[in-house]
Parts: sequence; structure tokens; C-alpha cells
Amino acid sequence: MAGNTLGRLFCVTTFGESHGPAIGCVIDGCPPGLALTEADIQPDLDRRRPGTSRHVTQRQEADRVEILSGVFEGMTTGTPIALLIRNEDARSKDYGNIAQTFRPGHADYTYFQKYGLRDHRGGGRSSARLTAPVVAAGAVARKWLGQAHGVVVRGYLSQLGDIRVPFVRWSDVADNPFGVADAGAVPQLEAYLDGLRKAGDSCGARIEVVGSGIPVGLGAPLFDKLDADIAHAMMGINAVKGVEIGAGFDSVAQKGSVHGDELTPQGFVGNNAGGVLGGISSGQDLTVSIAIKPTSSIRQPRRSIDLNGQPVEVQTFGRHDPCVGIRATPIAEAMLLLVVMDHCLLHRAQCADVATRLAPIAAAAAPARAAPQP
Amino acid sequence: MAGNTLGRLFCVTTFGESHGPAIGCVIDGCPPGLALTEADIQPDLDRRRPGTSRHVTQRQEADRVEILSGVFEGMTTGTPIALLIRNEDARSKDYGNIAQTFRPGHADYTYFQKYGLRDHRGGGRSSARLTAPVVAAGAVARKWLGQAHGVVVRGYLSQLGDIRVPFVRWSDVADNPFGVADAGAVPQLEAYLDGLRKAGDSCGARIEVVGSGIPVGLGAPLFDKLDADIAHAMMGINAVKGVEIGAGFDSVAQKGSVHGDELTPQGFVGNNAGGVLGGISSGQDLTVSIAIKPTSSIRQPRRSIDLNGQPVEVQTFGRHDPCVGIRATPIAEAMLLLVVMDHCLLHRAQCADVATRLAPIAAAAAPARAAPQP
Amino acid sequence: MAGNTLGRLFCVTTFGESHGPAIGCVIDGCPPGLALTEADIQPDLDRRRPGTSRHVTQRQEADRVEILSGVFEGMTTGTPIALLIRNEDARSKDYGNIAQTFRPGHADYTYFQKYGLRDHRGGGRSSARLTAPVVAAGAVARKWLGQAHGVVVRGYLSQLGDIRVPFVRWSDVADNPFGVADAGAVPQLEAYLDGLRKAGDSCGARIEVVGSGIPVGLGAPLFDKLDADIAHAMMGINAVKGVEIGAGFDSVAQKGSVHGDELTPQGFVGNNAGGVLGGISSGQDLTVSIAIKPTSSIRQPRRSIDLNGQPVEVQTFGRHDPCVGIRATPIAEAMLLLVVMDHCLLHRAQCADVATRLAPIAAAAAPARAAPQP
Amino acid sequence: MAGNTLGRLFCVTTFGESHGPAIGCVIDGCPPGLALTEADIQPDLDRRRPGTSRHVTQRQEADRVEILSGVFEGMTTGTPIALLIRNEDARSKDYGNIAQTFRPGHADYTYFQKYGLRDHRGGGRSSARLTAPVVAAGAVARKWLGQAHGVVVRGYLSQLGDIRVPFVRWSDVADNPFGVADAGAVPQLEAYLDGLRKAGDSCGARIEVVGSGIPVGLGAPLFDKLDADIAHAMMGINAVKGVEIGAGFDSVAQKGSVHGDELTPQGFVGNNAGGVLGGISSGQDLTVSIAIKPTSSIRQPRRSIDLNGQPVEVQTFGRHDPCVGIRATPIAEAMLLLVVMDHCLLHRAQCADVATRLAPIAAAAAPARAAPQP
Repeated sequence: MAGNTLGRLFCVTTFGESHGPAIGCVIDGCPPGLALTEADIQPDLDRRRPGTSRHVTQRQEADRVEILSGVFEGMTTGTPIALLIRNEDARSKDYGNIAQTFRPGHADYTYFQKYGLRDHRGGGRSSARLTAPVVAAGAVARKWLGQAHGVVVRGYLSQLGDIRVPFVRWSDVADNPFGVADAGAVPQLEAYLDGLRKAGDSCGARIEVVGSGIPVGLGAPLFDKLDADIAHAMMGINAVKGVEIGAGFDSVAQKGSVHGDELTPQGFVGNNAGGVLGGISSGQDLTVSIAIKPTSSIRQPRRSIDLNGQPVEVQTFGRHDPCVGIRATPIAEAMLLLVVMDHCLLHRAQCADVATRLAPIAAAAAPARAAPQP
Repeated sequence: MAGNTLGRLFCVTTFGESHGPAIGCVIDGCPPGLALTEADIQPDLDRRRPGTSRHVTQRQEADRVEILSGVFEGMTTGTPIALLIRNEDARSKDYGNIAQTFRPGHADYTYFQKYGLRDHRGGGRSSARLTAPVVAAGAVARKWLGQAHGVVVRGYLSQLGDIRVPFVRWSDVADNPFGVADAGAVPQLEAYLDGLRKAGDSCGARIEVVGSGIPVGLGAPLFDKLDADIAHAMMGINAVKGVEIGAGFDSVAQKGSVHGDELTPQGFVGNNAGGVLGGISSGQDLTVSIAIKPTSSIRQPRRSIDLNGQPVEVQTFGRHDPCVGIRATPIAEAMLLLVVMDHCLLHRAQCADVATRLAPIAAAAAPARAAPQP
Repeated sequence: MAGNTLGRLFCVTTFGESHGPAIGCVIDGCPPGLALTEADIQPDLDRRRPGTSRHVTQRQEADRVEILSGVFEGMTTGTPIALLIRNEDARSKDYGNIAQTFRPGHADYTYFQKYGLRDHRGGGRSSARLTAPVVAAGAVARKWLGQAHGVVVRGYLSQLGDIRVPFVRWSDVADNPFGVADAGAVPQLEAYLDGLRKAGDSCGARIEVVGSGIPVGLGAPLFDKLDADIAHAMMGINAVKGVEIGAGFDSVAQKGSVHGDELTPQGFVGNNAGGVLGGISSGQDLTVSIAIKPTSSIRQPRRSIDLNGQPVEVQTFGRHDPCVGIRATPIAEAMLLLVVMDHCLLHRAQCADVATRLAPIAAAAAPARAAPQP
Repeated sequence: MAGNTLGRLFCVTTFGESHGPAIGCVIDGCPPGLALTEADIQPDLDRRRPGTSRHVTQRQEADRVEILSGVFEGMTTGTPIALLIRNEDARSKDYGNIAQTFRPGHADYTYFQKYGLRDHRGGGRSSARLTAPVVAAGAVARKWLGQAHGVVVRGYLSQLGDIRVPFVRWSDVADNPFGVADAGAVPQLEAYLDGLRKAGDSCGARIEVVGSGIPVGLGAPLFDKLDADIAHAMMGINAVKGVEIGAGFDSVAQKGSVHGDELTPQGFVGNNAGGVLGGISSGQDLTVSIAIKPTSSIRQPRRSIDLNGQPVEVQTFGRHDPCVGIRATPIAEAMLLLVVMDHCLLHRAQCADVATRLAPIAAAAAPARAAPQP
């Protein structure tokens, strides 16, 4: 496939550019008979939407989604579901000065070298705006997975710059502008971000995503392991530079006698595996961590070159998030949902006849994985 | 596709189990006219081969590869290249006692639940032995990429358990049984591993892989970014729990003014991006790090359950690597080679006509990324 | 992939239903730098458009296409091209009486059994209206193939019911409402169709499509032969029941001494092969014939059952083509264009380095294949 | 995918050349728990095997298949099944004289132009020998489909050159060297073929394949209709030039009042649709017809050119079938089995939850489709 499609059976093809007339996606392969309206999709889009606090970009986009096909009398029909979001607040003039230069850390240079031309307006297709259709598609998967298997996928921000915010409780996440799982950390984060903004700088973030209620048996031996497909999806999110499953990089220094999660009749003891063994889901929580790099568009002047290779200085005054990670949690959730959805369909395609002799054992009674302590 | 194929145009489908009659792969899509014999493939297989030092499994496998098709009079013909490796030293009796139990940290439980049965001999398809065909296929990509683009892919072990071994020089890597880039660290590593073996325990490892000479322009915007496909391939290697590109998780605490690699007429300044911007290669070195979990098969007794869900104690006495990471470098190199190869073909499929106006700028004169310092 | 995508590198995913808000497609993988506006696409859409003569359905659809993405300042950027066509003249009430019954020869029964529900309005997704996005995508391929390789794809109707209309000249095709290559046959065809309409009946058609200027070397040995992919695309058009390449079914009774096209320094002698040898294009004209079944929606009463399995009588009074084949030529052309486009990209992906020693030999100086004589 | 793989979930990748060391395939995606040994596969291979009568090539190949993987203790495990067939009677010297020339009607010219080189021995990869792995894979699908759904796929030769042999009874098919469904026609066919052999010439054939017991609901709207995928598979068989579903090209001259199969509570009336409506199986018999061109390798001298474009005369004295169609029935059956198998898995992936309200209605009590009468 040509690159803009995710999934093999639940296939999401996105289209659009930041400042073009519209963005959207086509979902092909959705099971029929799922009750679906725009109201099922909008809440996730609203969580990702810009302009909701002073800590994110002030671009105003309602991000109203329109279902163009694949739904009849409120039910999915099994045919492709096209979702359309019109771009509204596209101030391309803010970006006019970047048409001739390559912004450091951005895709400007690589797009230009690959394609010989680029839509420079707001980053064109490389804009984080293109995560909106992904979130919309993820909402469809979320509804089906919830109804069919009781799957719950949620996430939180566990580190902002060098401030780590360990997990305290899920109920805090929705109630603060950073999506951290400890509302008590908010004042420190606000002060930190205000300082960054004043300095015309930006920072990175770490996001944790947890999938619960995942059926045992999703995935394949080689190469399309469940964790491999998760890594692919997560690294495909703008600005992501690292992906961990379970203990992740901490497992390097772990001993085998510590890392390998024991099994007992009462269930697993621990979840260093992060819910995947040999590429196949174990029924434990899927725990995924991602690293998001600092926003590349900053006010501080930076060195670069223009289209002719001549040195220039770049300063970015457009509307940008000082930390793109703050709005990244729903995107990472959507990606996990899409991968799990695809694997649910793949699994029953091959293994629907399997009569399992052993009831799935319980997941470890473990808390969500917190960010590693310093 | 059904899961056991990597790549879209340079497609590698592997088959086989640890103790079956043979393992191998079919490479479909190799460009014609490449001079190729078994001698081009064997060296990489020999680097991955077990039994070469006391620090790795003592299973004796010559891993002689036979080319069954796709090569005529020493040249690839453009038709599928089938590679066959017969299994020779398969002592299935060593594993007989695991037929009825699920080894902690292994795929035993998940395979059984997914498929309803499993080939328990030596781990069956989930065995690290199945990385041999991957390495063989990678050697074909290595030859083509070297000739066509001057690509060089190499790697080293940068951490063993909690011992970090920063990069010193490439020439050390081949000359020590651990593949570290600092031969001076070998005595410490040997003592550490001997201690683990005595304790009947195991440890994890961190591997760095570097691709140089990568053409600018490989990759796609969404979702099949070059880094996303690298993450997929790397996380698909047995025992890998984390993947980083460039600065990886360190980028979380970096400021935007530090992370974004500036461009100058003389070239890039730094390579925090790890050679990928917006999912497309920048022409800088691809730098990839992976975390490998500790070997799950250890001599220490561990709790588990049997096929009936009853509690059992598991001790593993088969021939195992105390750290599978020690043999993992050629595997990770192969994966990177296969992904880059696939993207080279994808790129010219779409963009062969592009007349680039700007000559590619130089990569940063940076050393290979060393493991992060404590 | 989930079924609604055609192509592996030039990927066209369509969406929409006959009476939903819109239909359209996403083209992923188009080479960048192609000048493209709606004006390049509209002419092919207009050829397929309903309501242009009394011999086709009177549904009035302007079929105005809107480019939503993938084009910047009049040039393709290499990112997905989304094309949108709003439905305008959707009189769903005409079809209300079919909600509870299965029309013979239609997809009503099979959709209902597969999906458990169906969008019955105007046939929903199984409507011939869904060929519009295919034609739109084909127009993009037509432009690129014409510029890059001088490819010309055109077709004509060679049989309507039992009236065969052998090829006379290309210039006649555009000037008559049936698209036959012999304007002299028009009065006979008009009389025939008028008779059918009076009788409340319908008939089938045979279409010939010819691709000229096809580069030698497109295709693959097994299974994705160029002719296999053409057969897939053609049989995927609504109502098509048969596909032939070159001599087609006539080759059954041919002798080997007749069928095999000889080669001479002056070029091929004959083109029974239809431009494909061993699944790979020979550089001769691609000649493809398709059989289109009679329109299933007719005024004559027919037996059927309702959703409860009870017997009913079905008469169709909606606006229908008495022969869907009359508007099928641009659709078949589009399908051939899409397949050839995809294979052009596939071919250069694998074989861009091949230095051919022998200049391609000439195609046979043969006329376009006429319909077989009775 | 690179071209040598058939199927999306039940994926068959073949490899090998006519005179290389071995041919074979990898089946990825087979459901686990299917009892499988070589004895399940060999009978179909034996039906396709050369050397069984004087009317087919005298090449002696035992075509013994070896299962290399994916089966454990007699059951499929869900992992890739590799099948290997060693080439034994490869007399490459017979073909030495064709290394420098392009045989008319063969893939010699197109392979040379595409790849820049070719394995000329026995036709290399374009040899009909490569249908053996397809037949082997089809046997696996046959077993699963028979057990899971009661599917029966069988075929017969309905025309040899210009001699049509209408269907009489299935029981005749296995008992004559031509696979016709009327043993009474054998003497006429023998005389015809003996005449061809004396004349150093060859002829084509028409094959009918019928699939019974097909579940209703297999297929997808666009583009991967069941019939489209069947057309792709059939046209991918060596020497096939035409494919029909149901009434095929006869439907051109049919009226709508005749063609559209009516539905009654007692079942369908007729099967002009050939078991597919709107791309989705109706539960009626799948009826497929294919046209096979005459063998291109004949003793009569033919004009061609050599690698330098100079005129030469070609006569073929190797061991060839005077009509390749005689051995084609098991191949066409295998292709149909593979497509149906793939669609069974695709269907349950998407629609496993569908609760159908209406019991499938019966198939028409129609005889197998005979060849059209002159």
C-alpha cells in the first residue's frame, strides 16, 4: 500500500493538509451493525482540539466531523465510512515567510527533497492537524471494541520536559489541561510552561497509554506481532521518537528472575511484559509509553538554509503548541485502538474455530505503569 | 497479509520452527541483476550463529543456507529467492518437560490460547532461531544497498544488564564476543555474565544500530513513515521491549532550542532526529536503539501453571543464552537493512521523476550515538 | 486490505452510496509534480454521466468533482488526493418499495445476508453510480500515463444485445450515443433499444478496450500478472460477467501455429496475445473485452421473496439504463488505466536499474480487435 | 506485495523455476487445528503431474511434496506452512538452444526486456511447472473448506480445440485422460490429439470449474468482489486468455427478463449469475469457465528473433503437452479453492457478529454449466 493507510482489515486511509479545504479519512472494513453517529466521534475530537487552554495553540478549529458514507439509519453497513472535517481557521499568511526556508526539526527539508515541491502552508501534510482524522477513526474502533470486548483504552501525560508526574488516579486526567494523572502537579507544570513560553522555547513529553480488557490471543508470531504493530502506529505519530511496551528500556537492567511475569492459578504476577508475550496479547493490560520531542516551531532564532542552500535565520511566530505532547494523549489512544481493532478482526479470521481448553487467567492486580522515577 | 511477511516491495516471508526439519524464507521483489551466491549471505548468518563463545547457547547449528530459486548463473533474476536452512542440532528431548507447562516470559501461554495447540519443541516458531532467515534476507538487502547507494549498516551492544559501554570505535566491535564498541570493557562484562550464569539468572541488553549513506527522501508522511516501519521491524525482533530513533526518550527533557537540528550550507548541526524528519530520511545517519529483555529461560525455579491451570514450578535446563542481546546485533542490522531496502524501492516507484533542485546537504559530523550516561 | 482499494502503489479507495450525501475516492501514491486540476478529471466524468441521451437513465447528476487534498498550486504533491462528488438528484422515494424485497439479479439478497442490513436506496453501494469515483481516479492516471509514456487508452461498444458492431474507425466513437466504432450502425441500435424499452426489458453489451503505447515489461510472473490484474479490475465493474485478453475464448479453437505471435526484426506479427506474454506486457496493444449483463432493473414483473422469505412480485419503475453497457466504456478505460498506472510504478520500483540490451520491437500493425463475427 | 503472493489472509507465496533445485510455496494464515499430512496434498498433485498418458508431456516428476513447517503432530499450528517439491527430471540440455532466442507465444521476450536477463531453462519461472505449488496449496484449502463448510470444488474439460464436450456426468471425469465429463467423447479426442501431434501442432482448451456448498456472503462490494478475485486468480494461470462467471459472454445477448435469476421460497430459479451477485456469493454454485490458449512450444518452425534482434527460426523439440489444458483442471480448481478460502476468512473477520434474519435460500436445481452449443 502507498503509505497513508493503517491496518489490514480495519483500514484507515487519511487525506488532507493543514491549510487545504478539508481533512478526513476513509475507514474500510468496519463490522456492520454498529450504531454510529457523529456524536460518537466528536468527544474524542474535542479532546484533541486546539484552542482549549492557554497552553496549546490558539488556532480555532471546531473540528466538526461529517459522516459521508457507510452508515444507514444510524448503523454501519459494512461499507467504507468516509469522515470529513473542513478546515476553517487556516491563516496561511502566518506561514508565508517559511515557503522559502526549511524550519529546523520540521519535515520541510525532507518533503522538498523527496517530492521536489511541498505545500508549506502550516506544514501541509506533516502538520499535527492530520492527527484529527486518526482520532476520529479511533473513536469508531473505541465504540466497537467497548461493545464487543469491553476494551477500555486511556492514557495520561507522565512527564513534561524534565518534570515527571507519576500516576495517582485516572479520575484526575480529564480535569486538568495537561492530562496528568495527578492534579496536584498542575501548578508546577503551569509555571514551567509559562517560563518556556516567555523564553520562546518548547519542551517534550512522555505519554502512557493503557489498554484494558484486551482479549488474549491477538497478534502473530512474525513479523506482525501485536507489539510491533503498536510500535509502528505510535512511531507514526508526529514528533514521537521512542516507544516502549511494558518495562521498556528498564528491562535492559532487569534480571530474568525479575522480568519474566510468573503465572499462578490466580493470575499473572506482575506485567513487565506490558500485555504481550511472543507478539501475542496475554490478556493483561497493554501498557505503552511514548516519547514526544519538543515542538520544533519556536520563537527563538535558529539557523537554517533556504531553497537555494543559502544560510538564513528562522523564527516562528505562527500559533503553536509549546509542547505538542499536551494534546497527544487522545492521538496515542486512537492509535492503540486502531491496532487492537485490526488485530481483533485478524484474530477471528484465522482462529475463530479454536476451542480453547483453558480459561484465560487474570491480569496482575497492578497499577498503571508510572513514569520511571529519577 | 497474514503476518509472517515483512515489507511491501522487498517482501520477506519466513517459515519454520526451532525443531522442525528446516527454517527459511522467500524474498519476493529483489531487483534483478544482483550478483548473489550463498557466500554473500553466510557471513551475516555466522555472526548470529549460536555456539561461538561460552557466553551464548551451546546449540551447534552450522546454519548453512541454500538458495533454492531466484538466482541464475550467479545473478538474481527478479523472481522469488527462496533460502533454506536445515535444522541439525534439535534436541527436542531437552524440552519435553515443557510440553505441559507455560514458561514465564515466553510465548507458551499466548500461543496456546490463540491457536489451541502449540509446537513446544524449543519454543517452536517463537524461538530466536527464527531470526536466522531474517539475517539471511538482510544480507541480500545489504549487498544491494551497498552497491546501489553505498549504504552501510552496523551496530553494537551498548549496555549489558546495568553495565553501559559507550561507543569508542567501530573496529573493536568484531573483535570481542559481546560486540561492544570498546574492547576494554570486555573483562568486566565477562565477569558479570559468569556471575549471572552461576546464579542461574539472565540479563537484558541495549543495542545501537547505525545506518550511513541513506539516501534523502525515503519514507512517507502517514502512516508508513520510515521511522514507523523501523519501529515495527525492531519491535518484531524477539525480546525487544523498546525502540528509539535519534535522541529517543532523551528528547522528552530536551528543549526545542536544543533538539531541533539546525541546517547550514555546510550540513546539519547535530542529529537528534536520528536521520528522520517528518517520517522521511534526511540523509543523516539513521540511529536506532533497542531494548532487549533478559532471557526468560533461566535455571532458577519460577512459578507457573500447566495446561490445566494447576500450579507448577518451572526450571529451564535447555541450552540458552544468558543474554539474548549478545547475538542480537546482526538481527537488528538485518531489520534496518530490510526496511531501508523496501523504502528505496517504494521511493523510486513514486518519485523516480523528481528533479531535485537542491543538492542534499551533509550529515552532521557526529559520532555514533553512545548509550546515555548514568 | 479491506476490499475497497484498488492498486498496490497507485491506490484508489472509493467510498459512498448511491443516495448518501456524497461519493468519492482517495488516491494514494500519485507521483508528485503532475499538473492537475478538476478540469483534467471532469471530461471523463462527463462521458460516464447519466441523463445525456434517451437511451440512458434520466437521473440528473452534474457529477462535479472537488479536489480536497494532494494538490498545491496546481501540482500534485505526492500526498493523498481526495476527490469528492456530492449526490444531488437522489430520489430515494422511487426505491422505497424495494426496502422489503430482493430484486432479482441485484445485490440486495447477498448484501442482506452478508451484512445483516443494507442501504437499499438506489442500490446503495452496489449502484453503478459508484463507478464515478473510479472514472475520476482513472483520469488522473490517464494524464500521468500520457505524459510519462504516451499511453493512450480508449474503448468502444462492439455488441449490444445480439447486434454486433465491428470496429470501423475510432473517430466515430465519440459522435454517437452508444459509443460504437461505426456510426452507420446507430439507427439499428436505436430501434433495438426503443423496442426493449417498450417491452420493459433490457439487454447486455460487449465492450472493447485498447491500450496503446504500453511500455514493455509491466507485470510479474505469478500471481500478479498484468493480465490477471486487468481481469480483476474488469470483473470488479458492476455487471461484468466475462473478461478476455487478446484472442480470449477464440484461442480455444486456435492452433498453436496460428495463435503464437511470431517476432521479426520489423516487429510482432499479429497480437493474439493481446499485449501480454507470461503476465508481462510485450509493448503491443493491450486488448481487453468484457461482457456486461443486461440491466437487472426492468419493468416486467419478476418473482422474488421479501425479507421474511415470502413470495412477492417485483417491478422496477425507477430511472434505469436499459443497457448499462452504454455508459460502461469510460469505466472500463479507467480500470485499465489504473492497472497500467499501478504496474508502471511497480515495475520501476523493482527494475529501474535494468539496462536492456535490446530495443523494444514494434507492435503488430493490426487493427483494433473487432467483435468476433457470428 | 511483490507479486508472487495470492490472497490476503490465506496467503500463498510460491517460488522456484522449472529447472532449479526445487519449487514450493509458503502458506501463511492457515487456521490452526487442521489435521494435515503430505497424504492430503499428494492426490491433487498427482492429478496435475506430467507423464501420465501419451497426450501430455513425458517429463517424469514424482512431485513428492515435503511439509517443512507449520504442522506439529499432524495438525496445523497456525504458523506458515512451507511445502517443498524437489525438481528431479530437469533436462536443461533440451532447452540449450533457446537461450539465445525468444520463442513465439512464450514469456521469453517479455522476461528478457523486463529483467534484463532470464533463466531460460525450461521456461524458468514462466513454466507451467510452477502450477504444482499452487495445486499443493489448493489441497490444503480443499481440506479446510470441505470440513468447515462442506465445499466441493471440481472441474472438467468442456472443449478441446474445436471439439465441444458438453457435461454428462461427474463420474466420468476421473476415468479418462482428458478429464471430460462424457467418456463417450474420448475416441474423438484421442484421434484429434494424435493428428495434432503428427502435425507438430497444438490446440487450446476450455475448462469449467464448479464450486458447490459455498456459504452465502463471501466477497466485498468494490473492488475485491468474489468474482473479481476469481478472475484474477484464473487469469493468473499460465496460458489463460479468458474468464467467465455464470453466463459469461452469453449474457451479452440475453434479455434482462431472462438473465436475472428469480428468487422463490423454494430457492433460486436458474444460475446465470454463476453464484455471485454484486460481488458477493449467493450460496448458489460458483460456475467459472476459462479459455486456455494452445501450447506455444510446437515442432513446426516459427519465425522469431535472437537476443540481438536478428531473425531466427524456432522449432521446439523439448517434452511438451500438445494441449496444456488437459492438465489444467486441478490447477483451476486449486485457484478457486484458494480464493474461496481467503474470502471465508475475510468474511468472518468483518461479519462474524452478523445475525442473519433469513435462512439462506436453496440453489437452483440446475446441472453444471456445459460448454455453449455451436
